[in-house]
Order: sequence, then C-alpha cells, then structure tokens
Amino acid sequence: MKKLMNDPKEFVPEMMKGIEAANPGTIKWVPEYNLIMRADAPNPDKVSIVQGSGSGHEPAHIMIVGKGMLDAACPGDVFAAPPMGNVVESSKIMDSPKGILHIVNNYTGDRMSFETAVEMLEAEDVVVKTVFVDDDVAVQDSTWTVGRRGVAGNFFVIKAVGAASEEGASLDELVELGEKVNSVTRSMGMALTGCTPPAKGEPIFTLEEDEIEMGVGIHGEPGRARKKLVSANEIVEEMVQAILTDQKPIFDEDGNQTGTADPVFGSGDEVALMVNGLGGTPISELYLVYGIAHDLLKEEGISVWRSYVGEYCTSLEMAGTSVTLCKVDDQLKELFTAPAEIPIRVF
Amino acid sequence: MKKLMNDPKEFVPEMMKGIEAANPGTIKWVPEYNLIMRADAPNPDKVSIVQGSGSGHEPAHIMIVGKGMLDAACPGDVFAAPPMGNVVESSKIMDSPKGILHIVNNYTGDRMSFETAVEMLEAEDVVVKTVFVDDDVAVQDSTWTVGRRGVAGNFFVIKAVGAASEEGASLDELVELGEKVNSVTRSMGMALTGCTPPAKGEPIFTLEEDEIEMGVGIHGEPGRARKKLVSANEIVEEMVQAILTDQKPIFDEDGNQTGTADPVFGSGDEVALMVNGLGGTPISELYLVYGIAHDLLKEEGISVWRSYVGEYCTSLEMAGTSVTLCKVDDQLKELFTAPAEIPIRVF
Repeated sequence: MKKLMNDPKEFVPEMMKGIEAANPGTIKWVPEYNLIMRADAPNPDKVSIVQGSGSGHEPAHIMIVGKGMLDAACPGDVFAAPPMGNVVESSKIMDSPKGILHIVNNYTGDRMSFETAVEMLEAEDVVVKTVFVDDDVAVQDSTWTVGRRGVAGNFFVIKAVGAASEEGASLDELVELGEKVNSVTRSMGMALTGCTPPAKGEPIFTLEEDEIEMGVGIHGEPGRARKKLVSANEIVEEMVQAILTDQKPIFDEDGNQTGTADPVFGSGDEVALMVNGLGGTPISELYLVYGIAHDLLKEEGISVWRSYVGEYCTSLEMAGTSVTLCKVDDQLKELFTAPAEIPIRVF
Repeated sequence: MKKLMNDPKEFVPEMMKGIEAANPGTIKWVPEYNLIMRADAPNPDKVSIVQGSGSGHEPAHIMIVGKGMLDAACPGDVFAAPPMGNVVESSKIMDSPKGILHIVNNYTGDRMSFETAVEMLEAEDVVVKTVFVDDDVAVQDSTWTVGRRGVAGNFFVIKAVGAASEEGASLDELVELGEKVNSVTRSMGMALTGCTPPAKGEPIFTLEEDEIEMGVGIHGEPGRARKKLVSANEIVEEMVQAILTDQKPIFDEDGNQTGTADPVFGSGDEVALMVNGLGGTPISELYLVYGIAHDLLKEEGISVWRSYVGEYCTSLEMAGTSVTLCKVDDQLKELFTAPAEIPIRVF
C-alpha cells in the first residue's frame, strides 16, 4: 500500500483537518462527530442540507460543503457508513427552523444509519426529511444495496437542492426537487484497477493487466461483467448505451415488480454530461472519454447542454471512470449554474 | 498499460477533441498545429499569451486556456516538446498588435523549439517575448534541463499574466510581472509510482513497493534521492524544508556561479500554498498533505493567504504530489483572485 498518510486510523481526521486549514472562515471541522460544516451554518432562513456516506469518495462529500451546496457532510470512515450517533449529533448541530434535508446514497448501511437517526431526531421534534439517490444503472441489487446504488449523479441532486435552498425553498419543495433530479439522472461506471482502503492495507479487488470491471460500484462492488480491456470507443459505447436503454423497474408495496419505467433520455433532450474520474485516472483520459460520449449522444439526437469533466465521486485511487447523464429543463439549468463556493476550486 | 484510449498515436488529438466538444463557443481546436485556443482570440486589445510544453501534464496547459489565463496552448506529444513549426504557426494565428508572450518551462527541448521559433517569427516582424519558468528546487541541472525545471508553479505565472493582460498590460509589463512571479515561486515534488506514456507502452521508471523518488521531475526524471516510503509527516517536512532553505545559485555571463540568492520565504511572509497531485493520487491524500504543510509553515511564521489543492500539473497517472509556495503581495493577491474562465471547473 503506497499512500501519503501517517497512521491509517487517522487518515480521515487528518484529511478533514487539511480541509479546515485550507478554508479558514468558511469551513469548520467538528472532530467529535466527523463533521465538516459551513462555518456560518445553521442558517435559520434556509433548510440545512446534510449528506453522509463513507469516506474515500472525495471530493464527495466533505469537499462540496459550502454556500450553494451542502451545509454539512458527516462521513463514516473509508467505505463505511457514518455511525448513527454521529448522524444524530450532526443533525442537531445543523438544526434549522426550516428543517433539515438528509441526502443519502442508497446503500444498506447508510440507510440504516440515517433512518434510525431520523427516528431519534423526530422523537426530539427535529424536522428531517430524506432524499435517497440511486442513479447507478449497472445492477439492480448489489453487494451493499437493495435496489440501485447511488454514485456520482448525487452531485446534480446536491447542486440543485443547494441552490434552491439558498433562495428559501421549503423542506417539502427541496424533497420534491431532489427526487425530480434523481429521477432524471443515470450513471454507469467501469474500473481499470482496484483500490486499497488505508485501514485494510490491501486491494479490495484486483484485475489482471488486460481486465476491466464493467459496471463497478464505488466501493469496488462487482458490476455487470469482468471483461477484456478494449478500446475507449468500445468502453464508452457500452456505458452510454447502458444509460440510454435503461428502464428502471417499478415495484409495488410488497416489493413485487409490476413493470418498468420508460427510458429517461431520448432524441431532442438536453442533458448535463458528466465524465467522472474514479481517483487514479488522469484528466487527459477523461476528456478523451468525454469526446466519445459527446459524439454518441449527438448520434442519438441528444444535445449536451453543459459538460462536467473531472473527479466528483471517487473510489480512493481506483483507475476508471463513470458517465452520468442528467436531463435538464429550464429550472435545472438555472439551479446548476447558480453560484456556489466550496473547497474544491481551481483558483 | 491500462488506459482509456484508442490508438496511442491519437491520444493527444482525441483528448483535444474532447476539450473542444466540452467547451463549445469558448475553445477552438486547430488539429494541424496541435493548438487549443480561445475561440475569441486573438484580441487586438491584449497581448496573446501562449504556452507550449509536452502533453501528459494536464490540466496544464490545454485545459487552462480561457479568459484570464492562456490565450492558447500548443503542446507536443506526451512528454515531448512542441515541434518548432507548430510554435511558429500557432504564434502567427495568435498574433496581436500588442504582441505575443510565450511562457516556456525550462526544458532543453522546449527552449530549443521556442527560441528557434522566435527567431523565425521576428524575421517576419512578429513581436514576441518569452518568460521562462524554473520553479523546481529539487535539482540544479537535470535529465532534460540545463538549470532548474519548470513545474506546477507556472500556474501562478500564468494566472498573474493572464489577469494583467485582460486589464491591458503591455508586453514589457507582462514579462516583468511573469519574471517577478517566477522569482518568488518555488516547488518540490515526490513520486510514489512511475507512469506510462501511451506511445511507449511501458513505465518510464519503476519504484519498489516501499520506495519513493524524492524531488522527482514531471517526466519521471530522477530527483534528489530514491528512498524508503516514510510517513506523510516526514515526506512533507522534507519537501517544505527543501523550499524554505532553497538558495538559487547566481551565475555570471560565462556560466560561472558567483553566489547564491537569499531564501525566498521567511517569517512574516504571506504565501499561496499549492498541493498539486501528479495524476494518480486522490484528493483525500492531497488535503492530508495540505494540513501538514500548512502547520509547518505556521511554525516558521509564514501565513497562508490562499490554498490551492488539486491537480494543476501532472505526469499522466503518476502517484505523488508536489508542494509550491508563491510569496504574495497586494498586486499578486489581486491578480490571483481576478475572474477567469477555463475548461477545468467544478460547476
């Protein structure tokens, strides 16, 4: 394991310390609860937006805390759900008269932690609602999920509700908005290599020199198939087609599938196109992927409204990429281009 | 070699195609000369700022072309200087009544290409001046350089002259400004792994599982020492001390050393602190490094005015990091925070 770190147990706290040091006056770190929050939060005039998931996906989510995005992020250790107690205490710190919105990626551990925390918070009259994100089309159920996984697409959910919350949207309006964005957002990823959690000390999976994992999860969970490394054209074609042909299953209250939804994207649509790096893939390759995805969408009559190329949701140092499409309308275009101020920036 | 690519020979053009596709209306790609330029350039009311170096260092420099930064970048192939003919033709396309500023990292191949091009351009009455960047303190001469190497610190040179050029600064003023920034900017890097140029197909160097290269160059050139992997605290301490104790040699016209300059940084100074990822290191580790560097500077009485954490100048998928300090005054603070619009961005 080759990492820039000291004690593996201090990996997450030392990273958080660095984020606070790099953003004096705007970001506050609360070590007791593994919490990164806006220094000026909570704001009584806005809903507090709180995300929690495992660490190891940075910049998601502790580096996208700030004006116009998250009010706080309370991650767990690397690839581990945040402890329920931390979610409760973090939410109390962030409590606002307008309520709290939890944004949770759909993993069993995260759901358990947040759902139990919400019960405890409600018992203390804290008003909390939750939006679950499940944008990954690769597999229906997975190692750590019932239903689909939440991956890089949650950036669009957070950007939308973050911007709307700054304009005073109510908790119910934000839930509706978050669920709307999730419903028009789809992602598909692939890995060239595994990655090594600091405390584990060895790769969570390994791939041969000529192998890829198509549809990989952001914790290294298996996807659709382990296959031979092929050209970028073929890889991107498979990812884009997986998204375009996706029809999400519909279930009744007893969990029986009753049908499938229509595909989200079609000719004439406008989309935000994200090419996300999983941590170890250089941005040169991401732009190469972008060019291919852009052309494939054009052939389908889908036009790209705006590009997002870089690292949004990673898996430590994993090499690989994911493609996310989000269908945009006038409301989303305005929210996606609203100003925001977060730790990750160029200037 | 595991990369997201098609034909290795098309790696650079396909990346450029992606950049143009992702930035319609603002970025133009001129395939004949491997040129990425602002779509609205050249602007007769401003000096055209043109950078050229090898590819493989992205986002440097083709992804930092835009308002407030570069007007154009004309790279060579991966880790190769741009052909002299491309520099000439690119400069002609970018010609402005206010002149052209070339920004060149100090490598023998790049210098040769640009210096010969300038002779040819001057013969055609094109007005060109050059700023050379040599911020790397690791070694005095190196595999591909006489004198010091130019690395991630050139971001600060480009940001300053880019902002000043938007305000109408003359070519001579920009040369003076660029040389000023270079004179107060110092960097030091280290690698955890090598990297593989697409056309070569094998790593340019390899490190054992417990080895690092301290002072590595951005083309994998040897630095000060190959040593055992130690804690992040020890690694960052060595890098920061290398910068703080650096005294650049002074040479006379015959190339004989006549003395050394004073150290650039001391107690009471304010600096921009950049922690740059070399391509394969996740941003979690970069923030961990940032926290350590920030504390070390504080102990020396040096205060960080602004943080820069992320990838600025990479070596393909190399794992590792570099630290850059730039001493700031009121003029530089204003230029560094001036608006800019370039392909790499979060939103």
